Amino acid sequence: MRIAGIDPGTIRTGVAILEGDGAKCALVFSKTIHAGQERPIQIRLKHIYEELAVILNEWKPEVAALESVFYQKDFKAAVKVGEARAAAMLAAGASGIRVVEYSPARVKESVCANGRATKDQVQFMIRNLLKLKEPIQADAADAAAIALCYLHSARFEELKKAALAHV
Amino acid sequence: MRIAGIDPGTIRTGVAILEGDGAKCALVFSKTIHAGQERPIQIRLKHIYEELAVILNEWKPEVAALESVFYQKDFKAAVKVGEARAAAMLAAGASGIRVVEYSPARVKESVCANGRATKDQVQFMIRNLLKLKEPIQADAADAAAIALCYLHSARFEELKKAALAHV
Repeated sequence: MRIAGIDPGTIRTGVAILEGDGAKCALVFSKTIHAGQERPIQIRLKHIYEELAVILNEWKPEVAALESVFYQKDFKAAVKVGEARAAAMLAAGASGIRVVEYSPARVKESVCANGRATKDQVQFMIRNLLKLKEPIQADAADAAAIALCYLHSARFEELKKAALAHV
Repeated sequence: MRIAGIDPGTIRTGVAILEGDGAKCALVFSKTIHAGQERPIQIRLKHIYEELAVILNEWKPEVAALESVFYQKDFKAAVKVGEARAAAMLAAGASGIRVVEYSPARVKESVCANGRATKDQVQFMIRNLLKLKEPIQADAADAAAIALCYLHSARFEELKKAALAHV
């Protein structure tokens, strides 16, 4: 199974492609898209959309996983997150890729066994779980964590199905 | 001059195309795009993006005017507004159309001579200013008001330039 994780932001957008299942998987691609903080928002969104469209079209993941958003520091930040999310969802849609969402707590729980893990802890666990030789940039690590959350959830569903079949 | 006004929302998106200048102009097209409240957000954004892309590509306005966002009732609403805004900005960008933004107060001031005008007052003034025989739906009226704000601002700049040339 090939899954994309995306952590969208109007300044930096993390992307990670994982291949495997919840038991064993590998990071086959990761990138941090820098949209350019000083450029007009329309240009930044176009940049994010186009870079993601190329990556998703090349790797053709089955699903693109995103984090759902509840809290942001202010309304302006929330609007910006929404803008970047839409660029990601539209880029996925352009390649016919379905988007699924997980809450930030569920992503952290899945990777760190702690729904309140810090960004550093996520980065550390991702490097260990995916056996990365090099450190991974924080936004790309977040993207990998979101993709891993999908694989863990899918594996859990499979195990549950198998267990119920034996009852 | 042909200008598009867009009032983006993940449920309803208003679009209006005005032709003329700040002194005299006409509404040549308006539409309320219903994205379907019950559909997944990815599908709604695709619907908004694609409908806008067709309209903008057909009418080829010089500029697409949007309202800037500062306040929303909660973070979830702010994220949603951001998502719809991005669909509009990306659709405009796909046709090479530049996006400009005005604050809600400036749009209301421009149309109603009152920065705190209500939605009803905007609807009423748009119908009068554009000499519409039929009532206009509220989101389409807002979109027309944003486009009109651009034309008024452009006319003001021209008059200022002409006045300064005679000094």
